[in-house]
Amino acid sequence: MMKVEEALHMVGGAGDTSYASNSRLQEKAIRKTKDIVEKALKNINGEVVSKSLVVADLGCSSGPNAFLVISQIISAVMEAGFQKAKEIMFLLNDLPGNDFNTIFRSLSLYEKKVKEENGDQVLPYFVAGVPGSFYGRLFPSNSLHFAHSSYSLMWLSQVPVGIDQSGGVNINKGNIYISRTSPPIVSRLYLEQFKRDFSSFLKLRSQELVNGGQMVLSFLGRKSSDPSKAEVCRLWGLVADALNSMVQEGLMEEEKVNTFNMPFYAASKEEVQQVIQSEGSFYIEQMQILESNWDPFDDSDDDQIFDNVKSGHNVAKCIRAVLEPLLVGHFGQDAIVDQVFERYAHNVAMHLLEEKTKHIVFILALKTKDLHH
Amino acid sequence: MMKVEEALHMVGGAGDTSYASNSRLQEKAIRKTKDIVEKALKNINGEVVSKSLVVADLGCSSGPNAFLVISQIISAVMEAGFQKAKEIMFLLNDLPGNDFNTIFRSLSLYEKKVKEENGDQVLPYFVAGVPGSFYGRLFPSNSLHFAHSSYSLMWLSQVPVGIDQSGGVNINKGNIYISRTSPPIVSRLYLEQFKRDFSSFLKLRSQELVNGGQMVLSFLGRKSSDPSKAEVCRLWGLVADALNSMVQEGLMEEEKVNTFNMPFYAASKEEVQQVIQSEGSFYIEQMQILESNWDPFDDSDDDQIFDNVKSGHNVAKCIRAVLEPLLVGHFGQDAIVDQVFERYAHNVAMHLLEEKTKHIVFILALKTKDLHH
Repeated sequence: MMKVEEALHMVGGAGDTSYASNSRLQEKAIRKTKDIVEKALKNINGEVVSKSLVVADLGCSSGPNAFLVISQIISAVMEAGFQKAKEIMFLLNDLPGNDFNTIFRSLSLYEKKVKEENGDQVLPYFVAGVPGSFYGRLFPSNSLHFAHSSYSLMWLSQVPVGIDQSGGVNINKGNIYISRTSPPIVSRLYLEQFKRDFSSFLKLRSQELVNGGQMVLSFLGRKSSDPSKAEVCRLWGLVADALNSMVQEGLMEEEKVNTFNMPFYAASKEEVQQVIQSEGSFYIEQMQILESNWDPFDDSDDDQIFDNVKSGHNVAKCIRAVLEPLLVGHFGQDAIVDQVFERYAHNVAMHLLEEKTKHIVFILALKTKDLHH
Repeated sequence: MMKVEEALHMVGGAGDTSYASNSRLQEKAIRKTKDIVEKALKNINGEVVSKSLVVADLGCSSGPNAFLVISQIISAVMEAGFQKAKEIMFLLNDLPGNDFNTIFRSLSLYEKKVKEENGDQVLPYFVAGVPGSFYGRLFPSNSLHFAHSSYSLMWLSQVPVGIDQSGGVNINKGNIYISRTSPPIVSRLYLEQFKRDFSSFLKLRSQELVNGGQMVLSFLGRKSSDPSKAEVCRLWGLVADALNSMVQEGLMEEEKVNTFNMPFYAASKEEVQQVIQSEGSFYIEQMQILESNWDPFDDSDDDQIFDNVKSGHNVAKCIRAVLEPLLVGHFGQDAIVDQVFERYAHNVAMHLLEEKTKHIVFILALKTKDLHH
């Protein structure tokens, strides 16, 4: 099996199945964080910023959202009016498998858009790409003023140790994530992995941020305290259903499906707060919880489904842009992917008739504790 | 015609015609600059370096040479023994068309090599990719300690204004660079473009480097004061011969060949010195002139050609990895490229029987003038 770092990345390029074309869910979350980003930037003490403000976007992905973040932060910085900041350096980070070429080749295009949105007097800015896992060090010590991450921190650094007993007993058979049929140890192993990963993330960023630096993080979470009742359990459960039906028809090996588990965890609000407190480098300055329809094109706030079949397809395209590289990394055959997502679209359509489940998105603004006082 | 910024980049990936597989010429130059790099790094006043040393490689290309530079600089920094530098940040720059994905995806592989060469006690380092032309600003003000560039500064920002009279009279008909048959105005226009470009390069870097920062630059030049007698005139002349022979056989449009000119200039030592002096931001601390055989696999110092046909092929592969994207950008058809370089390999083989022409490589160490004193 490939390492998660190698297999996990959004679908590159700008084609029909690319993340660039199927990232509206993240876009909606980024737009919703605008006020929090502005407030967080205003909270950065102008004193710590020398001539240039250094901003990192962790898990930037490829496509328009990387630029939306840039544009939004430029506006917010201009609003915040740092007297000293004359330039902004953006450090766009994602895993090495991310399609940085596509980002870099569309920079000049987006520069025009940024000017349209912010006027010709826009602060000069520079863009660099930084490949690597944010569960490792990415930047020099005390080099960042602001770190931003959207829709990334629910991804773990690996499938929890112990879940995937290669060669041994498979404790999460028939499932790809925590499910009602998973034994309790599965939830426990997932939670432990999340705690280790999120705690490392906080510790590493606290080394990279200057004292007084800020972070705004948004990521998928859950409402229930019971991890097997998380909204995403249904989302991944319907993928498992698609895979299992293909096993039954002899289109996939049972063993392969049994050994596939998501390097993903939807934490509860309490779990998130507990990790931040026990790690100890950051204060929580703001926390919001958003709900977002599974279908990225459904902007309604009610529980009505307008067209369940269309929504099923929309959800499948969106999930495919995220999941395809992981599936290909594990199953090693691309041919089957079309079938998986056809069945998945159907499963989602059927599910939506029963219940309009939503994504739960946590938005957090964190400030470094000033260690010198 | 495509803009030079869009069309000029080395062939990406790691295949047989890629720059990654055909960059031994640059590799040899990088190895030869080792001592100069070490000396230049020692000349950086330790006081200006805070905890992390920030190093830019301008025109990093894709492939092993990008990592060779990193490894060499790490050794040199560890030799120089900055007491304060605990970390190094490498900013790898090239045009947006460069294959950054390939660099980023081989980072972990090269990290192992760097550790093999420098021991486990190697300084922690971080790598970012910075897309853009070095004839524009790339980094925040006063953010670099050391800038390195190898085999890149002979590339101009554009074909000199006035050479390519689209629709009008073509003043450099039948040639793709300065040749003995070019009218004198062609050399003059090329020199003017070089002066503008190199001068901008110096000015921009002086803004980005801290006071006391250093640069080591290596690039192709010429020995003769007469630009039409430059060694590379023969190199490009043999490409022109290949293109012209294809015109005569009706395989290429004459108009297309007449409007193709290289965005390239091989300056003389005096021209280089004069630009540096008149621009005024840098002192020349060291200057060396290297000669390097056209055939990257010919390491001999004599004037003997061992196998002219094989050398012809080696040179053609090396030039193709550099020139193919420019040719495709102009002629718009890849199919013809194989033929161009078959003919070119033959032309080089024949030429080498007459004369073993060499590349002339300038290596310069420049130090910023301290503007505060």
